[in-house]
Amino acid sequence: MQAYTARAHTNIALLKYWGKANEQLIIPTTSSISLTLDEFYTDTTVVFDQHLNEDAVFLNDAPLTGKGYKKITDFLDIVRQLAGISTKAHVQSTNHVPTAAGLASSASAFSALAGAASKAAGLDLSLADLSRLARRGSGSASRSIYGGFVEWERGTDDTTSVAHPLQEVVDWDIQLLTVIINDQPKKVDSRGGMQHALQTSPFYQNWVDATNAATVDMKTAIENHDFQKIGSLAEQNALQMHATNMTATPPFTYLTDNSWAVIQLAAQLRSKGIEVYATMDAGPNVKLISHISDYHEIVLALQSVLPDVETVAATPGPGLVVVAGDEI
Amino acid sequence: MQAYTARAHTNIALLKYWGKANEQLIIPTTSSISLTLDEFYTDTTVVFDQHLNEDAVFLNDAPLTGKGYKKITDFLDIVRQLAGISTKAHVQSTNHVPTAAGLASSASAFSALAGAASKAAGLDLSLADLSRLARRGSGSASRSIYGGFVEWERGTDDTTSVAHPLQEVVDWDIQLLTVIINDQPKKVDSRGGMQHALQTSPFYQNWVDATNAATVDMKTAIENHDFQKIGSLAEQNALQMHATNMTATPPFTYLTDNSWAVIQLAAQLRSKGIEVYATMDAGPNVKLISHISDYHEIVLALQSVLPDVETVAATPGPGLVVVAGDEI
Repeated sequence: MQAYTARAHTNIALLKYWGKANEQLIIPTTSSISLTLDEFYTDTTVVFDQHLNEDAVFLNDAPLTGKGYKKITDFLDIVRQLAGISTKAHVQSTNHVPTAAGLASSASAFSALAGAASKAAGLDLSLADLSRLARRGSGSASRSIYGGFVEWERGTDDTTSVAHPLQEVVDWDIQLLTVIINDQPKKVDSRGGMQHALQTSPFYQNWVDATNAATVDMKTAIENHDFQKIGSLAEQNALQMHATNMTATPPFTYLTDNSWAVIQLAAQLRSKGIEVYATMDAGPNVKLISHISDYHEIVLALQSVLPDVETVAATPGPGLVVVAGDEI
Repeated sequence: MQAYTARAHTNIALLKYWGKANEQLIIPTTSSISLTLDEFYTDTTVVFDQHLNEDAVFLNDAPLTGKGYKKITDFLDIVRQLAGISTKAHVQSTNHVPTAAGLASSASAFSALAGAASKAAGLDLSLADLSRLARRGSGSASRSIYGGFVEWERGTDDTTSVAHPLQEVVDWDIQLLTVIINDQPKKVDSRGGMQHALQTSPFYQNWVDATNAATVDMKTAIENHDFQKIGSLAEQNALQMHATNMTATPPFTYLTDNSWAVIQLAAQLRSKGIEVYATMDAGPNVKLISHISDYHEIVLALQSVLPDVETVAATPGPGLVVVAGDEI
């Protein structure tokens, strides 16, 4: 059997995925729009091997066990079913997504796994089919099949819930600066958090309606390279998503005092003419959408508010690449 | 002229007042429901004095100046207009509302001022007219005319926007425990905060709709002494109000990490069978609605989360009292 290696990049959602209409197939309640990031990616090699009695999965050179292992073997079962094989696989994955950055490594992980495992199983899937497949591992992975700005269309079933590129090559001045917030509030994982908000927040449907409206505007803004509109839509959508958590029963929040200090700094910088907008996912880190050319000014301003702040910068990145490796 | 002294108690809103439909008359966008508190009050003495060239206002024995003075003289102008007099007044006010508790002293202050100033000006207003008058000084003061549970009906004009008692004598087990949070985030006063949320939050109307629905349920719950329903409606309404701030443009919050620690502790205590619910106003303090009988258990639990925590307990209190004083 032929080994295949895939590289997929993670992405930041500008309009968020926050809730499943179908838990099993991972069909979301809204479409979402993201930007794939150049600096953060996962490399995964897969080979199906007749000699294995069970899947062997290594993450960053250590054997994966428990729930993480179960998620991978469940995903490989989907690939085996598609390919009509029952052979077990050897999976070796290396994550180049700094954990502290709070960027979803599952997006790049399942996108890379979809790419490598499908080819290694003898399938030759289209990018759309790879997006559908990746979605089954982790919703946001459906978007990491493509580079640049990507829309994951909500859809209504396995066929229609799929990502497509909006602007694959982003040759204009936009960057994502992740501000690492060291406060760690009580952890609620994104899977549990979105389900709790969907089930108990009276504002959940309002967020869905607002996201549907924002999706139309965001696509126009991306087409027009309208940075200000992209940023303000992204910031509003993120805060509206977090408001569904705050109004859940019982309420919870991912945002800390330091998250809010950065959110408010972004507003202050905007009032001084520096275009910078905040977005936050299922954790306290704040990701600032800005022009690359404002990088130093923003970092200086951050240091004046949070003296020991750490930041990680990223720029738009490419889609999935799969290459053939050794034969075994 | 006869001096009059009034005592009015502050109140805690269980369904919040958060936005004005009419800025000048202070007509709110929703009805609100409160509980008047026994331990926190303002004593105010007013006498109109022909010898004065301007109003003389003393708060806690110090002369009041600036914006605070302007608010009082503007209010006295309304009283003078009603009474058909132009005489200036001597006002002496003592606040027994601890500033750190973050309870609105303006509610008891303008309720007491309405009571003392109207009588001193020779008016003999009904309680409903006193509520309308107090509203002109501070919206929440309209509710402090009455004891116990009070509804300020939104109304549509000066006549219909008025408070009335729902349950004046509260002879069952309910208390309010204010948890003093020492973190002080960037200050946004309630007047500015509510206006900003009303003008810029896409969830503002959703909060109005939710409050309208909750008003009906809250009145039934109060009638039935249904503590659990009162508490859960209050907590949800408060968080929905705070969600309008979070989704404003730019966003802001009054809640800090320690506020959230207390909010989440309340949920934990509930899961252990202790009925306690959180409500928060335009500041970081969290007010816990609980049974008096659970006081010690709640304070112990608070201390385990915030070791140096300070708390102030309060029970249901009476309405406005006005007494005649010296003649000058």
